[in-house]
Amino acid sequence: MKDTVNIGLIGFGTIGSGVVETFNMNTPLIEDKVGKKVKLKRIVDLDVTTDRGVEVDPEALSTDVNDIFNDPEIDIVIELMGGYQPALKFILQALENGKHVVTANKALLAKHWEEVISTAKKNNVRVCFEASVGGGIPLLQPLNEGLASNNIESVYGIINGTANYILTKMTEEGREFGDVLKEAQEKGYAEADPTFDIEGHDTAQKLIILTILGFGVYVKQERFHVEGITRVTPDDIAFARDEMGCCIKLLAISKLVDGELEVRVHPTLVPEEHLLSSVNGVFNGAYLIGDVVGPVMMYGQGAGMMPTASAVVGDCIDIIQNMTKPVAYGPKNTRVQSVKEMSDVETKYYIRLTTEDKAGVLHEIAGIFRDYDISLESVNQKPTTNKGEVQIFIVTHTALERNMTTAAEKISQLKFVESEPMFIRLL
Amino acid sequence: MKDTVNIGLIGFGTIGSGVVETFNMNTPLIEDKVGKKVKLKRIVDLDVTTDRGVEVDPEALSTDVNDIFNDPEIDIVIELMGGYQPALKFILQALENGKHVVTANKALLAKHWEEVISTAKKNNVRVCFEASVGGGIPLLQPLNEGLASNNIESVYGIINGTANYILTKMTEEGREFGDVLKEAQEKGYAEADPTFDIEGHDTAQKLIILTILGFGVYVKQERFHVEGITRVTPDDIAFARDEMGCCIKLLAISKLVDGELEVRVHPTLVPEEHLLSSVNGVFNGAYLIGDVVGPVMMYGQGAGMMPTASAVVGDCIDIIQNMTKPVAYGPKNTRVQSVKEMSDVETKYYIRLTTEDKAGVLHEIAGIFRDYDISLESVNQKPTTNKGEVQIFIVTHTALERNMTTAAEKISQLKFVESEPMFIRLL
Repeated sequence: MKDTVNIGLIGFGTIGSGVVETFNMNTPLIEDKVGKKVKLKRIVDLDVTTDRGVEVDPEALSTDVNDIFNDPEIDIVIELMGGYQPALKFILQALENGKHVVTANKALLAKHWEEVISTAKKNNVRVCFEASVGGGIPLLQPLNEGLASNNIESVYGIINGTANYILTKMTEEGREFGDVLKEAQEKGYAEADPTFDIEGHDTAQKLIILTILGFGVYVKQERFHVEGITRVTPDDIAFARDEMGCCIKLLAISKLVDGELEVRVHPTLVPEEHLLSSVNGVFNGAYLIGDVVGPVMMYGQGAGMMPTASAVVGDCIDIIQNMTKPVAYGPKNTRVQSVKEMSDVETKYYIRLTTEDKAGVLHEIAGIFRDYDISLESVNQKPTTNKGEVQIFIVTHTALERNMTTAAEKISQLKFVESEPMFIRLL
Repeated sequence: MKDTVNIGLIGFGTIGSGVVETFNMNTPLIEDKVGKKVKLKRIVDLDVTTDRGVEVDPEALSTDVNDIFNDPEIDIVIELMGGYQPALKFILQALENGKHVVTANKALLAKHWEEVISTAKKNNVRVCFEASVGGGIPLLQPLNEGLASNNIESVYGIINGTANYILTKMTEEGREFGDVLKEAQEKGYAEADPTFDIEGHDTAQKLIILTILGFGVYVKQERFHVEGITRVTPDDIAFARDEMGCCIKLLAISKLVDGELEVRVHPTLVPEEHLLSSVNGVFNGAYLIGDVVGPVMMYGQGAGMMPTASAVVGDCIDIIQNMTKPVAYGPKNTRVQSVKEMSDVETKYYIRLTTEDKAGVLHEIAGIFRDYDISLESVNQKPTTNKGEVQIFIVTHTALERNMTTAAEKISQLKFVESEPMFIRLL
C-alpha cells in the first residue's frame, strides 16, 4: 500500500473547519496510529476566501470539485456540504471513481441509503458515517462491530441536542417552550428555523440509520410516527416529575417485539432512575439492549464543530487501517418480520386535559376511556390560573395506540374540553 | 482466505460457558456478518464432565490444550482460564503458533503486557481483550479506534461492579460497609474473599490497560496509589450527599496534566450532576475526555457470564474481519513526559475525624492544616451517638497530597483524636 494517504474535503463550513483544525492539531498522532503519512490534500468550497479561523494551506483550496474527483492520488473524500444535492451527486461520483467516502450527512443517508450503499459495494469502497448520528460519540462502530455478537433488541436515543437542550432548560427552570426556544436561538443552540430539530425530523433521520445498523432494515421516514416537543408544557414536566418520578425526553425508539419492529419518535416519559434521564442539555445518549450484552449506553456531544470532526477524522483513520475491509452494515438476515403500524403500538400514556370546572366532566371523560378499553392508573385534577377551569392529569395502564388516539379525538370534541388533549407515551 | 474460521476455547468456566451459549444463540448472525463459517472447534478444560448448563458438542471437548495448539485449522484461541499461570504460557504458545488470541484476563495483561504484546507483534497476529475492562461495554475499541483522532486528556472509570454495588447499596439504604458486603457475598455479587475487588486491585489492573490505550504508557501497579472502599462509612456518604451534593464512587483515574500523568484508584466524591454519579449497582461506566471530542461516556454491565461473553465473541468477529490488521495499541508517541508521584497530586479533600468533645480541639486541628498550607472551605461539627464525642467534617480547597497525608498523620497523633482521619478526594 502507498506511504501517503490523501484526503479531499468537500464543504469548508463549520464542521469542515473542525476537520481541518483536527488535522492541524493531531496529524502526528494520526500518522503514528496508521503508520503512514496522511494529508488533507484538497479542500473544495464555493467560498474559499472567507477566513474560517483555522490555519489552512492556500494551495489546498479550490472551488472545483473535479480537483478531487480527477485526482488519482486522493483515496478518501469527506463530504460535509450537507443537503441532498449536489451532495448526493458528489458522493456517488467519488464512489464511482473508487474513492472511499466519509460523511456526516444523515438527511442524505436516510433518504438515499440504498443508492449510496449499493454504489459503494459495486465499487468495492467504503462509506463511513459515524458523525451522522450522535456527533462525536462512538456509536455506530460499537453497534456494528463491538456488539456484533448480539441481536439488538432495542435502541433508545436522545439524538437531537437542540430538543434536549430545550427540554432540559424547561425542566430546570420551569419555563415555557417558546421562551426557552428563543433563548436557544440567541445562544446558537437552535437554528433560525428550528422546525427540523423541534418537530423530530432530525431525530427521525438518525433513527433510520440506527435502525439499519441495529436491525438490518431500512424504514423510510414516511413509514413511522414522528412527533416533536412543541406541545410539551411546564405543567407536563412538573406533573411527570412530582407525581410520576419521570422526566420528558424526545426519544428515538426502535424495538423488536415478537418479530415486529416498532420505529417511532416522540416525547417520552423516562423514569428518573433510568440513565437516559441523566442525558441533559446539548448532550446525546443512545441506550441499546443486546440479547447477549444486555443494556449499554454511549454518551457525548451529539453536534458541534469539534465533536463532529472527531468522528469524521476517526472514520478516515478507520478507512486507512482497513482499506480492504468488506462493506457490511447491520445484520444481513434480519429477524424483523414486519414494521409495526403506529396504531398497533401498546404503551402506557400520560394525558393532560383542560376543561371547565363543572359537575359530570370526569364522568364523561372516564366513559370514553372505558368505551375504548383504556384502563386508568391514576387521575389528578388541579385548578389552573383561570377561574372556572381545571387541568386533569391521567395516567393509563398499557393501552393500544389506536384506541388512545380515537379516545383523545372523542374527548377533544366534548364541548367542555378547552384544548386538544396532550398525551405523552411512557418508556 | 479460508471459508471456515475455527476457534479454540481454553477454560470452560462461567465466561467460557457464556461464550459457548453465545455461539449457540447467534452463530447464524455472526456468520452473516463475517461472510464465513465460524466454528467453536475445540473446548479445553481440566474438567469436561461437569454439566455447564449449555449445549455443547461432546466431540469438541478435550482436556489436552495441545489439541488446540497443534491443530493447524484453529485460527483463534480464546483464553478464559484466568490467573497468571498456566494462562500466560498458553497465550504465548498460541501466539507463537501463529494463532490470534482473545482474552478477558486483565490480571495477566496488567502484569505481563510487554511480553504478550511483543510476542503477538513478532508473530504478526492479534491479541484482543475488550472483555478485560468493562465486561460487555464496547470501551477499548472506541478508545483505540473511534476516538483515534483524539489525544486523550483523562479517563475516569467505575470499573468494578462489586465495589460499585456495595457503595450504591450503602448510599440507597444508609447501611454499613460490612453489612452490605455480607449481603453482596450471599447474592453472589462479591467473592468469598472480596479483597481483590474492595481494595481496588481489580480496578487498578483495568486502569493499567486503559492507561496503555489512552496514553500509550504502561504503568505498573506498584507505581500508583490504590485505595479501596473499606473505610467509607454511612456518615461519609450522608455528608457527601447532604452537604456537598456528591456521591462516593470507587474511581480509576488517569489524567494528563502539563505532560505529567496522574494514575490513581481511590474512593472519590462525584458531584450528583456528573453522569458518573448515575452509574449504579453492578453497572460500570467509563468517562473519557478527548482533546477533539470532549467528554464521552460508555456504560453497561462490567461483569457476568453473558455480557463478558458478548465482548469475547465481538473480539473474535473483529479478528475474523481484520485478520491482517497490524497490531497497534494506543498512541505510539505518547505525550506523557512522566508519571506523577501520588504525593505531588493536587486535589480538594473531604475529611472526617472523630474527637473528644472539648474546648480547643478545633483550634489545634486548624493549626495543623495551616502549618501544611491547607486552606479550608468548610468545617462542620456533629455529635455522634457516643456521649462526649463529636465528628468533624472538613472540606478543603485544592491542596497537595503530600501536605494532606502529613497533616492527617499529625492529626491522628493528637491525643483527643479517636480514630485515624478518613479523607476522600474530590473529582
